[in-house]
Amino acid sequence: MKYSQLFPSAQKETPSSESQSYQLLIRGGYIHKEAAGLYSFLPLGIKVLSKIQNIIREEMSKIGMQELSLPCLSPISLWEQTGRQDMNILYQLESRSGQKFALNPTTEEVITPLVKEYVRSYRDLPVSVFQINNKFRDELRAKSGILRGREFNMKDGYSFHINKEELDQYYEIVTDSYYKIYDTLGILASTVFTYASGGDFSKYSHEFQTICDIGEDTIHHCEKCNIAINKEIIEEQKTCPKCNGSDFSIKKAVEVGNIFKLGSRFSQAFDFKFSDKDGSKKFVEMGCYGIGPTRTMGTIVELNHDKKGITWPESISPFDYSLVLLGKDPLVKKAADELYARLTSKGKDVLYEDRENTSNGEKLNTADLLGVSKRIVMSNKLGATNCEYKKRRDESSTMVSVKDLVNNL
Amino acid sequence: MKYSQLFPSAQKETPSSESQSYQLLIRGGYIHKEAAGLYSFLPLGIKVLSKIQNIIREEMSKIGMQELSLPCLSPISLWEQTGRQDMNILYQLESRSGQKFALNPTTEEVITPLVKEYVRSYRDLPVSVFQINNKFRDELRAKSGILRGREFNMKDGYSFHINKEELDQYYEIVTDSYYKIYDTLGILASTVFTYASGGDFSKYSHEFQTICDIGEDTIHHCEKCNIAINKEIIEEQKTCPKCNGSDFSIKKAVEVGNIFKLGSRFSQAFDFKFSDKDGSKKFVEMGCYGIGPTRTMGTIVELNHDKKGITWPESISPFDYSLVLLGKDPLVKKAADELYARLTSKGKDVLYEDRENTSNGEKLNTADLLGVSKRIVMSNKLGATNCEYKKRRDESSTMVSVKDLVNNL
Repeated sequence: MKYSQLFPSAQKETPSSESQSYQLLIRGGYIHKEAAGLYSFLPLGIKVLSKIQNIIREEMSKIGMQELSLPCLSPISLWEQTGRQDMNILYQLESRSGQKFALNPTTEEVITPLVKEYVRSYRDLPVSVFQINNKFRDELRAKSGILRGREFNMKDGYSFHINKEELDQYYEIVTDSYYKIYDTLGILASTVFTYASGGDFSKYSHEFQTICDIGEDTIHHCEKCNIAINKEIIEEQKTCPKCNGSDFSIKKAVEVGNIFKLGSRFSQAFDFKFSDKDGSKKFVEMGCYGIGPTRTMGTIVELNHDKKGITWPESISPFDYSLVLLGKDPLVKKAADELYARLTSKGKDVLYEDRENTSNGEKLNTADLLGVSKRIVMSNKLGATNCEYKKRRDESSTMVSVKDLVNNL
Repeated sequence: MKYSQLFPSAQKETPSSESQSYQLLIRGGYIHKEAAGLYSFLPLGIKVLSKIQNIIREEMSKIGMQELSLPCLSPISLWEQTGRQDMNILYQLESRSGQKFALNPTTEEVITPLVKEYVRSYRDLPVSVFQINNKFRDELRAKSGILRGREFNMKDGYSFHINKEELDQYYEIVTDSYYKIYDTLGILASTVFTYASGGDFSKYSHEFQTICDIGEDTIHHCEKCNIAINKEIIEEQKTCPKCNGSDFSIKKAVEVGNIFKLGSRFSQAFDFKFSDKDGSKKFVEMGCYGIGPTRTMGTIVELNHDKKGITWPESISPFDYSLVLLGKDPLVKKAADELYARLTSKGKDVLYEDRENTSNGEKLNTADLLGVSKRIVMSNKLGATNCEYKKRRDESSTMVSVKDLVNNL
């Protein structure tokens, strides 16, 4: 992609916000604010978001979760069946013929009766499914950009089991796959497995909390075990569940994932039973597993930036390379055009900074702001056969011949 | 994917509907009905839908359209600005703090002010963007399954130009790319470029109408020119716009795409002007380009099925191969397991019918119902070294050695 053709190819002014990710993503043309809590993802933003979604998709697939897609709208009657129709974050609407709908903030009320229709016996279980689509929450306060939206992208997975033991085992498997996701996304070192309220489902749920000053959550972190307790339950759980110690550091964090053992809370509400081996009818045991690609994207930027801009991890960098052409020497331009064509033909996704009438300084600043993980500079000074190579996170660059660069891809 | 592990791995009864696509997609476990007009896409359905979306995505990308993603919710104030807040198909809702939102049925009201923020001069134009996400219409009647939903998947693209001539040129380019999409999807031969109402934007819009008895639209088809006129404007446009003849066949059709020249209808509403070369301020000229992946998927099934089930075009078949194991010979099973592993290792996506306690007849019926485009059968009769190969649309199969099959992939 040539930068001169990218939409938008101009940056906006820095918006005021305490959130670095909000400022950088707006300035870089990754996102656009439609209203408080409502964001569009522009072409650069979609590229990063899709990579995050695909990393999640791949890990879910490895543990046998199958992708499906439920609508955003659901009949309010489903929420009445579980008694959750009065949740204050539930957007509701009425059609012109008087049907009442909710805009799903989560989808236990939809997936449970759906799976029930296909499951009769223990032979049909376990079932494990997920979807990646937009969810909706009527938040009184929507702030910090895509860290807390009113509409946001969410992977929600659900598993259905014959008993608690099987659920427990699968829960561990999902937990491991979440660690792998955060590792690939480059935020594992800052992300802490956290005990949190289990709501009316179970004693605890578990959150993946990424330590970050802008976070709205407070966690009590046992650094020895790298386990934390969400402040909201510290009165019930005063010691580390692993070492029983109470040597906690208190930290701000962003909840980037949340998993629950739902038990039979929803299978009872929807009378979802299966025939077990002995012929008896039992309620299905359920787990649910959430992770928010948009919030995670914001969190990654909070943790990966410097004064000049974003420093994307390679796994989700919007392009493989940023190729910056400085100066107006026609021979150098021709060499840069050729390098762009060669990298592209080798399957590399390159953002080619080809703008005319833009100063060298602005081009380099733009590359730093956008934060593509690897940068190649070609310039009059270097001539047509050499270039400067630098990782975005490195301080210094190395000079290499264009030939070597291409050969060493 | 092993069929025994697919969710759901059992078919449902045939639901009553006049729509063949609805019946077949429900029975095959492609979709699930949540409420009238609200459908979930199950794992098989997501596979087909994603392929359709990717075919569209690729063609849009070839003509320089860049993907972005707007939220489903938008402030009602945007719709008040164009006077479309009272459209009867517009779902509206109010948050608990009194903010009013629309659920987008289309997004001119969102994309126009967004693009305006980044465009100052003729140098910033043209801009051409699209998104693929769910749209919402408060339909009084939602029928025929995914042919007319209240929530449905939609690709909507928008282009912004310096003048009508540039818009006209780009409109032709998009028209060509739509033909390519329908060609790849296997419905080009039945799809007719149709003149339809231009609303308050322009004299005509253009629809891509796929001839099909279940269609809700009626078109007057000039078979000589393969152009049609939608019945709704036949009083204004009584002759074929190409040959001026009036020899029409009247046919039922499904609108699988719709493109409009919007002119300056929305740029005026949002005061979106740019500085032209001579320094004068002019309104941007807009085009919009819609195509519905979910409706198109339903239409493809309407046109591609027989008494036994769906006959997917190869381009969107949920799997490359359906591998059906008949009988219980352990040597044949071992050979089928190996073939499954080899096909998979060669990057083929295979649905392996491995169910135990399922009759041979039911296995073959299931393969026919699901309609994967190519089928391989292994059975006791054929032994461990041979198999039967058949395209779903062919009447007869050929016997080939497993070795040759793998070598000739």
